[in-house]
Amino acid sequence: MINNFYYHTPTELVFGKDVINYLPEVIKRYGKNVLLTYGGGSIKKIGLYDKIKELLKDFNVIELAGIEPNPKYETSVVEGARLCKEHHIDVILAVGGGSVVDCSKAISVCAKYDGEGWDLISGKVKAKESIPLVDILTLSATGSEYDSGCVITNISKNDKRGYMDDIMFPKVSLLDPTYTFSVNKWQTACGTADAINHLLEQYFAYPNNSFNDGLLIEGMKTLMKNVKIALEESNNYDARSELMYLCTLACNGILSNGSGSSGWPMHSIEHALSGYFDITHGAGLAIITPRWMKEILSNRTLERFVTLGIRLFEFDSNMDKEEMANKVIDNFYQFFLSIGIPMHLKELGVDENRIEEMAKHILQHDSTLGEFMYVELDEAALIRILKTSM
Amino acid sequence: MINNFYYHTPTELVFGKDVINYLPEVIKRYGKNVLLTYGGGSIKKIGLYDKIKELLKDFNVIELAGIEPNPKYETSVVEGARLCKEHHIDVILAVGGGSVVDCSKAISVCAKYDGEGWDLISGKVKAKESIPLVDILTLSATGSEYDSGCVITNISKNDKRGYMDDIMFPKVSLLDPTYTFSVNKWQTACGTADAINHLLEQYFAYPNNSFNDGLLIEGMKTLMKNVKIALEESNNYDARSELMYLCTLACNGILSNGSGSSGWPMHSIEHALSGYFDITHGAGLAIITPRWMKEILSNRTLERFVTLGIRLFEFDSNMDKEEMANKVIDNFYQFFLSIGIPMHLKELGVDENRIEEMAKHILQHDSTLGEFMYVELDEAALIRILKTSM
Repeated sequence: MINNFYYHTPTELVFGKDVINYLPEVIKRYGKNVLLTYGGGSIKKIGLYDKIKELLKDFNVIELAGIEPNPKYETSVVEGARLCKEHHIDVILAVGGGSVVDCSKAISVCAKYDGEGWDLISGKVKAKESIPLVDILTLSATGSEYDSGCVITNISKNDKRGYMDDIMFPKVSLLDPTYTFSVNKWQTACGTADAINHLLEQYFAYPNNSFNDGLLIEGMKTLMKNVKIALEESNNYDARSELMYLCTLACNGILSNGSGSSGWPMHSIEHALSGYFDITHGAGLAIITPRWMKEILSNRTLERFVTLGIRLFEFDSNMDKEEMANKVIDNFYQFFLSIGIPMHLKELGVDENRIEEMAKHILQHDSTLGEFMYVELDEAALIRILKTSM
Repeated sequence: MINNFYYHTPTELVFGKDVINYLPEVIKRYGKNVLLTYGGGSIKKIGLYDKIKELLKDFNVIELAGIEPNPKYETSVVEGARLCKEHHIDVILAVGGGSVVDCSKAISVCAKYDGEGWDLISGKVKAKESIPLVDILTLSATGSEYDSGCVITNISKNDKRGYMDDIMFPKVSLLDPTYTFSVNKWQTACGTADAINHLLEQYFAYPNNSFNDGLLIEGMKTLMKNVKIALEESNNYDARSELMYLCTLACNGILSNGSGSSGWPMHSIEHALSGYFDITHGAGLAIITPRWMKEILSNRTLERFVTLGIRLFEFDSNMDKEEMANKVIDNFYQFFLSIGIPMHLKELGVDENRIEEMAKHILQHDSTLGEFMYVELDEAALIRILKTSM
């Protein structure tokens, strides 16, 4: 059965080598004044920055550089919104990974709002307007290029928020897999882990249906196979293109329409971790995944694990179900380990003494923990997941 | 590998029982003057017409009734465009199946064009503007509710044309499976056959990739399973909802992005058949399918059939490949037969004496025969496919 759903993604996807050549004609639709946003400068190393400046030589390009991973409200968002107002920006061009795109989405609404931007991001006020956003992706991971959400951290409030609004969908996402050739092993592994986790969060939605199971599992298979190739051979176009496309689809919803409401419990937990300790999002998710699975494994969820066992890992369907479920969990653990993610939070600098505080924070601040999920997580459960993840 | 692609579907999907209640708020976005388009009156039988009139009591509703299957340019499209101009229509509300939605798309552009509308549909002139289109679907079949194409027949020119343009995407598609409860067995079978064929045409695109194979095959499985249930039990919501969602996705492209260019060879052939003999589109496609498969089966396509054998029909992977390919073809034949489609064109009134003429017509008029396909079809091949389909 297909459950009731609303689905809408107006973003244009332009995928393939050299699609950047469409940039001037895309930008021209929106105006002359461009805010170019990017991160730590890797786009300069790979020659992308120069290429963009050349392509946009007839436009007025203002720059916001240095957007950090886990982008911060107080610095990047506020500064970007200020630049937009000052320079009458017509269109934002985000060049980078999920953090740059997320930050640019937040800027796109804050720039059109006269009050305190955090009121929009925290959901206190509904945004009415946004500046059009175009992106050039350089990292396959979050799927922000094909959704309407962003995750922004407010350092002074110790608060990392997911914020969604249809007016933040990018207008156009230019997806050239060759821009991900230079992504290092750590970022490649963590980006893929992020996307796998997106598929898993949707897979564990309740109720599910067999069609969506199929789509989500095909997605996981494709990611798990291709990340290994990309880690061996960084410039492998085939593998990089499949990673890029799958990461783009993984957070969009098209693979799970009609599957009932899915919470984002692992994301909720991870947002606390990276909010407190600024760890890499995908690594945090990978580490939590098998521990969260152990926590929710019960008679109610057993069949979900069995389906993963048979359809994703091709286990013998005659295997004892509980044994299979545990093997599924172990396979995810071993898979993440095999792509280079240390599977213990302490290796990323997380302090065990703050677990109780984080558990409380998650329950207070995060509404995506999943009231519709198979298993509701209380404080004790959160503490167990975090402790076993150490 | 993901091949270069462009993908864009801005249509909002609103899916589920009673979503019609959103109608006033959806229509209000576009204006006061509504052209309500529908077919032969089945929407009156199921009470949908009255419900719509009640919901739109504060709007000016002009009606275009009697849109026929294989909608005709000279009657429905021209008349619809005339009504739009005369009544300053702000939004078209199409209520029905693919024919009504297709016809309404053609109306939406012809109404904003001062010249001869057929110049748009035949591709001579590019449309610049369209009237917003909203639809309420009552038949799961063509997927027109989620694509930018329409198929229109020009009787005086004996010409059935596929016409696509991004400005014809519906703004909103309201998808309530309960409106398909009363669809009879013949239309249920033919609608599903249409959607299965859409998936097959994309599956046989070249080059393919394993991820898209997975999505398309999951789609076929879901359709083949649920049509049997819906034929047994017309009011089965689960089955009707899966048919409705899958038909909506099947022609959209989201299941085959990155799979290389796909021709629509079976559709090309069928368009001639229904252009000449006004047969039901899905039935024509079902009859052609196994004969087309026989024609293209060769060393070059063998593996495509084997993948279908293993992943769709779960044949033993050790089976001889050629044997498996033939079994796949036979399975499709038997499947279509089992859902009530007579598997010979003569049973639908097609005259064998006009096969040569139709073959010539297809080659002259239809550019979607598939130059990028595995196997190019010449006149002799078309004649063989049509003759064996008799």
